[in-house]
Amino acid sequence: MTIEYATPYRTRSLIPPEPGKPYFIEKGQGDRAHLFGDLFTVYAGGEQTENTFNFFTCEGPKGDIIPAHSHPDTYEVFYVTQGAVRLFVEDLEGEQYEKLLSPGDFGFVPKNCPHAYRMERHHTQIVGVAAGPGGTFERFFENLGTPTDELTLPARPFVPEGSKFATVPAEYDVRFLPGHEWRTGG
Amino acid sequence: MTIEYATPYRTRSLIPPEPGKPYFIEKGQGDRAHLFGDLFTVYAGGEQTENTFNFFTCEGPKGDIIPAHSHPDTYEVFYVTQGAVRLFVEDLEGEQYEKLLSPGDFGFVPKNCPHAYRMERHHTQIVGVAAGPGGTFERFFENLGTPTDELTLPARPFVPEGSKFATVPAEYDVRFLPGHEWRTGG
Repeated sequence: MTIEYATPYRTRSLIPPEPGKPYFIEKGQGDRAHLFGDLFTVYAGGEQTENTFNFFTCEGPKGDIIPAHSHPDTYEVFYVTQGAVRLFVEDLEGEQYEKLLSPGDFGFVPKNCPHAYRMERHHTQIVGVAAGPGGTFERFFENLGTPTDELTLPARPFVPEGSKFATVPAEYDVRFLPGHEWRTGG
Repeated sequence: MTIEYATPYRTRSLIPPEPGKPYFIEKGQGDRAHLFGDLFTVYAGGEQTENTFNFFTCEGPKGDIIPAHSHPDTYEVFYVTQGAVRLFVEDLEGEQYEKLLSPGDFGFVPKNCPHAYRMERHHTQIVGVAAGPGGTFERFFENLGTPTDELTLPARPFVPEGSKFATVPAEYDVRFLPGHEWRTGG
């Protein structure tokens, strides 16, 4: 049952383009994209779930904190399966929290809450679900970044052209927060 | 930030009852329930996501195939993090598939597709998301089964009273399919 499909996103994908079709995807073989130093892999998206949820992984090296951002209409799950991730999140009253997440630990970021994370070990993997009443935003990563057939982290970080930041984030419910500061000390 | 809340489901829960609140839950400490031989742990549900998705784990021993069932309005993800799971699924045309899922492997079951699974190793863990346009159904496990404060598998399988099968599954979009047969051979 390893069938490859042509979809709106890939000439070869293991995700059936038509809804209502069961499928299996072996580890690593979802729709992959590189963005900065990370590998994002989509296993299910809005087309599969009547736009209720998605399911993806993010793998990366030990590195810097990613830019603070929020999602006006999207709730986001961080579930760590390998390595360690320090998740930073600010609630709607402006109170800030941070937590080092190890494998099996879970973090929840509601819509509109500023957040960021830093992978604190090499070979870290996060499982993500990011969705809300307005839909799902799993194709953000390949639109700000770039689709790839590789199964590995980018050999060199993929840095998007500056012009993309003006349009792509808003299309996928991502709002970067330049100048945002974390006062949690981590 | 380990705050315990009283919620509609637990006198002590790490899931904030009011929406819009960020939170972290360490491995194993979500809302737990025993059902048959398995331990289900809910980390997020409909209240947290405006009813768009949930996030839970299912841990169990090597055992028998669970009863075939379907969800008229719910899409379901099976993502294996430990052990091995054989997932059986039938598409809407009646064609049947099975696949042995190892850690990192993914299975997707659309609404209305009969399915079942069998854990094929002890200490197996599945990450699940089960939701659809009608909502999320993460409280099925503790309503057919029983809430627990334990962090471990049930010492003895928790077998629901027979009368519960007449009411609880339908309330949580679960339709058991007695007599359903898997012809896939696995």
